[in-house]
Amino acid sequence: MRKDAAKSSSGDGADESRKACHGPHDMPEFDEMSDLGEPGGYPFTRGAYPGMYRDRHWTIRQYSGYATARESNRRYRYLLSQGNRGLSVAFDLPTQLGLDSDHPLAEGEVGRAGVAIDGLWDMETLFREIDLGRVSTSMTINATAPILLALYLVQARRQGTSWGAVRGTVQNDILKEYIARGTYLYPVEASLRLVTDLVAFCHGAVPGWNPISISGYHIREAGSTAAQEIGFTLANAETYVESVLKAGLHIDDFAPRLSFFFAAHNDLFEEVAKFRAARRLWARCVKERWGARNPKSCMMRFHTQTGGSTLTAQQPDNNVVRTTVQALAAVLGGTQSLHTNGKDEAMSLPTEAAAELALRTQQILAHESGLTDAVDPLGGSWYLEKLTNRLEEESESYLERIRSMGGMVPAIESGFIQREIQDSAHRLQRNLESGERVVVGVNRFQDEDPVDIELLRVDPETRERQVMELSRHRAGRNRDRWRRSMEKLTRTARGRENLMAAIVEGVEAGATVGEMSGAMGEVFGEYREQVVL
Amino acid sequence: MRKDAAKSSSGDGADESRKACHGPHDMPEFDEMSDLGEPGGYPFTRGAYPGMYRDRHWTIRQYSGYATARESNRRYRYLLSQGNRGLSVAFDLPTQLGLDSDHPLAEGEVGRAGVAIDGLWDMETLFREIDLGRVSTSMTINATAPILLALYLVQARRQGTSWGAVRGTVQNDILKEYIARGTYLYPVEASLRLVTDLVAFCHGAVPGWNPISISGYHIREAGSTAAQEIGFTLANAETYVESVLKAGLHIDDFAPRLSFFFAAHNDLFEEVAKFRAARRLWARCVKERWGARNPKSCMMRFHTQTGGSTLTAQQPDNNVVRTTVQALAAVLGGTQSLHTNGKDEAMSLPTEAAAELALRTQQILAHESGLTDAVDPLGGSWYLEKLTNRLEEESESYLERIRSMGGMVPAIESGFIQREIQDSAHRLQRNLESGERVVVGVNRFQDEDPVDIELLRVDPETRERQVMELSRHRAGRNRDRWRRSMEKLTRTARGRENLMAAIVEGVEAGATVGEMSGAMGEVFGEYREQVVL
Repeated sequence: MRKDAAKSSSGDGADESRKACHGPHDMPEFDEMSDLGEPGGYPFTRGAYPGMYRDRHWTIRQYSGYATARESNRRYRYLLSQGNRGLSVAFDLPTQLGLDSDHPLAEGEVGRAGVAIDGLWDMETLFREIDLGRVSTSMTINATAPILLALYLVQARRQGTSWGAVRGTVQNDILKEYIARGTYLYPVEASLRLVTDLVAFCHGAVPGWNPISISGYHIREAGSTAAQEIGFTLANAETYVESVLKAGLHIDDFAPRLSFFFAAHNDLFEEVAKFRAARRLWARCVKERWGARNPKSCMMRFHTQTGGSTLTAQQPDNNVVRTTVQALAAVLGGTQSLHTNGKDEAMSLPTEAAAELALRTQQILAHESGLTDAVDPLGGSWYLEKLTNRLEEESESYLERIRSMGGMVPAIESGFIQREIQDSAHRLQRNLESGERVVVGVNRFQDEDPVDIELLRVDPETRERQVMELSRHRAGRNRDRWRRSMEKLTRTARGRENLMAAIVEGVEAGATVGEMSGAMGEVFGEYREQVVL
Repeated sequence: MRKDAAKSSSGDGADESRKACHGPHDMPEFDEMSDLGEPGGYPFTRGAYPGMYRDRHWTIRQYSGYATARESNRRYRYLLSQGNRGLSVAFDLPTQLGLDSDHPLAEGEVGRAGVAIDGLWDMETLFREIDLGRVSTSMTINATAPILLALYLVQARRQGTSWGAVRGTVQNDILKEYIARGTYLYPVEASLRLVTDLVAFCHGAVPGWNPISISGYHIREAGSTAAQEIGFTLANAETYVESVLKAGLHIDDFAPRLSFFFAAHNDLFEEVAKFRAARRLWARCVKERWGARNPKSCMMRFHTQTGGSTLTAQQPDNNVVRTTVQALAAVLGGTQSLHTNGKDEAMSLPTEAAAELALRTQQILAHESGLTDAVDPLGGSWYLEKLTNRLEEESESYLERIRSMGGMVPAIESGFIQREIQDSAHRLQRNLESGERVVVGVNRFQDEDPVDIELLRVDPETRERQVMELSRHRAGRNRDRWRRSMEKLTRTARGRENLMAAIVEGVEAGATVGEMSGAMGEVFGEYREQVVL
């Protein structure tokens, strides 16, 4: 993979990185103080915190959720009992797209890619016997992020937990949905407003919450290079920052709570370099572009997930090896939290056994491998520092190109970003077909025996049960209160006021995810995708 | 584990290595040219060869062998078909101890820990349809190394392969048997003679063979620290070198063919540092003590095996993760060849599925992880260079202590080495019991469900079949020729001439492993172990 990235480089970085041996004379221009600094200090190349894992392990945060809230709740309690320190909620596609479970388009998708959430009753079940004042929860949700956050907050308050005490993250990164993931609903500008409203709302009301997780993960999974992953993610981040600044906040009000989400793929050193380059580039950007004064504003914190697209359906046990190497890259790169994929995730959601092994993978790295003894243990390696510089340069050149196009919104609307990623994905595919890139068990070292592996099956009656519950709650709610809340939501969407309060009111009045996102859609309209040629 | 090692340090290295962050100012005394040099150049800290894996991957060499020669032959051909590039033969305990399969003490052990070899007929079966002119073979054999090497050479010649063309290694490291592994037969001085005879014989007759693999593996597996592994192994190596020099060879005649064998345990950076420290310490030793002129004499090459003692019977899938990290350490440390353990090896010899996954582990590291793009990719990392210095210092201080005791033979005979290892092993065990050292699935994160894993079972009729074959060959051989060869062997053992020619003659006359080692035992006597208090 590194070779592919190197080829996409415009400068001579590619040749340099192919040198046989990297030594002290390869980096005459390198300045340890300004390029690295101390861990926990600007530009944060060596890590977000001074003590890093010596003070506190990364958070083991396994992304999970399936079927109904009841099944997912059972899985979460299992994961917490097994040493998970944070939850990471996967929602099903209808919930992500703002469709209630009884919507005709939801058929076949309810509870499949994650848990189905229609309203507050599901949220209550999802976190039954889980203290929201003690657990930190990450929610992978974007177009409907304001609604799901409101559901979480209302549920927390019902448990007796104040909003000042809840900890967690919503992904709330809609731009990468247009680029790579596809669960967008509204035109870009309306979506940006929702993102901004959520960030501004949390600044005032939920100070311990990370109101956005700007995600390179899906950009990378779509086939981009490591440099594109960073470049496009930081370009998205710039767009959000500019939008929140326009809403009247100061950079130091909200930048400390911006969080990021990256992939960890197989090329160990390139990945470690990527994480370090991302921290440095972001720190310089926040300080130099927006004049941040609070050092925490420049400090990039990120979650990492091992690369789902690197897993193979062939010889699924091999995925344990890949995931271990990728997890190692994330840890050596200084991630704040980590999801390791189950070995069967190329084929389905993980079985309990696969999920346990994925968790054990992190525990072994945390407790047996000595990785928590030192901060940025690779720091100073000539090879790694060279790679870090190269990744930063390549990412920055993307960033500059997007700025010169007028920012991410026109870059998306013109199809530029999508085209760049497609080109990289095609290059990867060609290299696989030519054999230049080897994937063990796929284009070399194949087995003839068919794979025999037990997969997780979602109960086919999931949707039926979910729809019954939905109908019961729709019938039982206070119809007047519900109508008033929906009207207020529509009114607010038409104006310019922050939408979050109206959404919270809707949640409390028993409105469903589909009803609320539908109401906003009536006002905002739909996004029409550019055909990328 | 690093913490344990650090505690055993007498200097302030322990405190230093606990520093939060390692930066450029931690190593004022560090000299890149003299401490590191270029890869492939003195003192070889950064690797044995200039291009390392960029020119040629490490050799995947899976240690295997079980039951009879027929079963093992089938496994070897499978491994070669799956991309293994070298063979590594495990012999059963009777073969290692010079007992024929029909010896009463062999009962229950024939074909259990490896393949049973009684004579030339078994060697013929073992390598049927395997071209000994093309494959390189490592044989883990010590007390009976001269006999097994003779069997291999005679079999190669029968296949039409000249001794100039065979490639491989015999372990032939008897000193560590007294220290840690236990398959010794004769008093130390007689054993040293056999080692020396084999080295000198190969120098003349089998120039492409590595006549010894000086092994830290078993020392480490017995519970020693990383520094002890290097210190004791190099002290053994010194003893062999001195003995071969006394036999009249010049250092540059044989030092280029000395090879080493280390373990790779879990503490990633300490292990990488260990490999680099071992190369540097050995290079300095060979040049400064014995005045080697040939740069290759100073160049340490080694095989690595992942740490069997780190595997757990609990949650055996976790062993895939451990083995991946350990394999990575070996590769980042610049190993020449590598064995990765099967996940079930805490309980038995690996099943075919476990052996395949272990192989795939190496292939993924070789082809998917970018590890072959750079030479010594960690070189220059302040943390790693500091650890490398610390490991070298601690190992060297053991080396000096053993020299001051008059060398390894008195150090073993006094029980000093065994005691040092026992102390370390006890410390490890205490830390496990106190919970200071965490082993996932063992003293934390345990499961209640019993392990359900398919284990390899050796056919209980193995011994019967092996003994039948042995009797048939004993009955069929030319009795006169056999008797003459045995008499010559005894005569040579009584004198001072190199024993190898007589052993080769015995092999050709159909003498068995037990008969030949027994004949030598009659002359040499037995070793009596010191009771270590």
